[in-house]
Amino acid sequence: MVLNEMRKDYLLDRWVVIATQRKRRPTDFVRKHEPAKTGACPFCPSNESMTPAAELVYLRSKGGKIRKEQDADGFRHKDWLIRVFPNLFPAFTPPESEKKGTEKKNAFLGEAVGHHDVIVESPRHDEHPGVASVRQLGLVVDAYVDRLEFLLAKPYVRHVSIFRNHGAEAGASLSHAHSQVIATPFVPQIVREEMDASKRFWKNHGECALCNILKKERRSERFIWENGSFVVFAPWASVNPLEFWILPKKHQASLLDTGRRERLDLAVAFRVCLGALKTLLDDPPYNYGLHIVPKREAVEFYHWHIEIYPKLAIWAGFEKSTGIYINTVTPEDAAASLKEATKKEEKGIKA
Amino acid sequence: MVLNEMRKDYLLDRWVVIATQRKRRPTDFVRKHEPAKTGACPFCPSNESMTPAAELVYLRSKGGKIRKEQDADGFRHKDWLIRVFPNLFPAFTPPESEKKGTEKKNAFLGEAVGHHDVIVESPRHDEHPGVASVRQLGLVVDAYVDRLEFLLAKPYVRHVSIFRNHGAEAGASLSHAHSQVIATPFVPQIVREEMDASKRFWKNHGECALCNILKKERRSERFIWENGSFVVFAPWASVNPLEFWILPKKHQASLLDTGRRERLDLAVAFRVCLGALKTLLDDPPYNYGLHIVPKREAVEFYHWHIEIYPKLAIWAGFEKSTGIYINTVTPEDAAASLKEATKKEEKGIKA
Repeated sequence: MVLNEMRKDYLLDRWVVIATQRKRRPTDFVRKHEPAKTGACPFCPSNESMTPAAELVYLRSKGGKIRKEQDADGFRHKDWLIRVFPNLFPAFTPPESEKKGTEKKNAFLGEAVGHHDVIVESPRHDEHPGVASVRQLGLVVDAYVDRLEFLLAKPYVRHVSIFRNHGAEAGASLSHAHSQVIATPFVPQIVREEMDASKRFWKNHGECALCNILKKERRSERFIWENGSFVVFAPWASVNPLEFWILPKKHQASLLDTGRRERLDLAVAFRVCLGALKTLLDDPPYNYGLHIVPKREAVEFYHWHIEIYPKLAIWAGFEKSTGIYINTVTPEDAAASLKEATKKEEKGIKA
Repeated sequence: MVLNEMRKDYLLDRWVVIATQRKRRPTDFVRKHEPAKTGACPFCPSNESMTPAAELVYLRSKGGKIRKEQDADGFRHKDWLIRVFPNLFPAFTPPESEKKGTEKKNAFLGEAVGHHDVIVESPRHDEHPGVASVRQLGLVVDAYVDRLEFLLAKPYVRHVSIFRNHGAEAGASLSHAHSQVIATPFVPQIVREEMDASKRFWKNHGECALCNILKKERRSERFIWENGSFVVFAPWASVNPLEFWILPKKHQASLLDTGRRERLDLAVAFRVCLGALKTLLDDPPYNYGLHIVPKREAVEFYHWHIEIYPKLAIWAGFEKSTGIYINTVTPEDAAASLKEATKKEEKGIKA
């Protein structure tokens, strides 16, 4: 199997995966004026043969306990609650030998060694986090933890990125509720920048930058919601209209540092805040990403969190050429609307 | 008038303009299922009263010569060839006093002082660069030069960004052929990174990085087209499918360094390459941006150029969380298709 290439820009510290494994010809992009495709959903139960074999499934045992099977042949399990398998068109793929790992051919070229998984979040096609049961969302969080542990143990993996695309405009090619996981052989640029800035703040102030921010934003007009373990707010310099972040109250470097209670609290935070967003704007498209510490990095100064970006604006020529963003909604207005919506949402869940 | 705010991210060196002047309420983003709006085009001749008064117009004099009027009241001129006026919802706005300039309130907050102009490229609604006459495109390039000169002379302006959004999916809110110009009181992050990398290369190799690249790419399988003054190629680490760059053959830091011949050659490059893209993919949406040296910067090491990004993919959760991009078309395939298309396009123009 030919690995995808990773290429670095001539000048910028920006890497691109040239995804030859899902290679498309230029003419594939000729504009099509045809209706959206319909047909069987490959992520729905009974269609397991339409996807690669499962790497991990959560099953319901007798008595209601959850049973996990690694490297499970998904074909035999139709009663799964969570199903994880490699993306059919992976951006990053495992090396032939675990020991070989990635090869950087020169400063501008490397092999896209790693993993690219799909986590199907529910057997129910439409059980998205904004409407899911908290119980099911707890399983999704558990699956995030399991994949983090599994992938970070690989010798060639430096960082694991967990993200979710919701809605076609936000890049979701299938509408069945799912997240994705990409394990990379290097630390991505944005994570590296966050690490460096956190380290500088720690050195200068003897404190974690995001702990400091959490303290302030919890009392600011950008505050949205909180529970025992998490605070949710619209960040000061939101790039996207209605953007919000979920921060753990405890200073932790990774989702892996959380305990049972915190994972359930995260499931509730997802349900309440994504439910509020859905209700407020009639199910808008969005992306979210977990920002966690890379492997083998000094972890004392980094504070993991989740950033949720509603897809309500288009980044155009100015943003793409300069790296400056224009946001037409103030974070304060965004927070006020989302705060009210989360209050209603919370009542609905409790009722 | 209240100026827009510029805000810096907690950790990243990323600035956002909170555009309160085009402020929208969160509920403005509730999904609408209504047909696209129709009505009079505010950029078409006779509708000048629908836009702010012109700052610059190009007029046809008797005898065919072009006459330019600065600070022209656009209402009186209906026979314009190019018309420039401030964006009705500017991201950056001039200060009350030229001498006052911008104020940085703290490390995380500044005033969005500057300019935000619209350049209407033709009185003809659909005279986009892919189909325009080379003569008209020459006027567009001249207007770019005029605005650069005018804006860079302002004491509070550090950098001028010229860009074009084509098609609704690429962020063009109006379909009449137009470019935009944004003058900022600081050097944008991407430009700063390009400058720093160019400087390092110059110091290490005693040569301009992009001169070196131009030499190589002109002979590589990523080469697309050239004329007397410009080389066009698909960059090695293209972030976007079908991305291409236009580089001047001479080592120059800015469009301002070009002469008469080069400006006409740029008009031809626009016509041929954007025409080829249009023909190849049935008029796809795209963005382009001019990358030029900021004011008061040492200029010997920087090489100005234009980057064209067809909008054929969606940047989703992974790209937005990591800064790593996935491109499903190899730059080599992109170049092969565009090369063939430019050959056909060139014949069409000559004929």
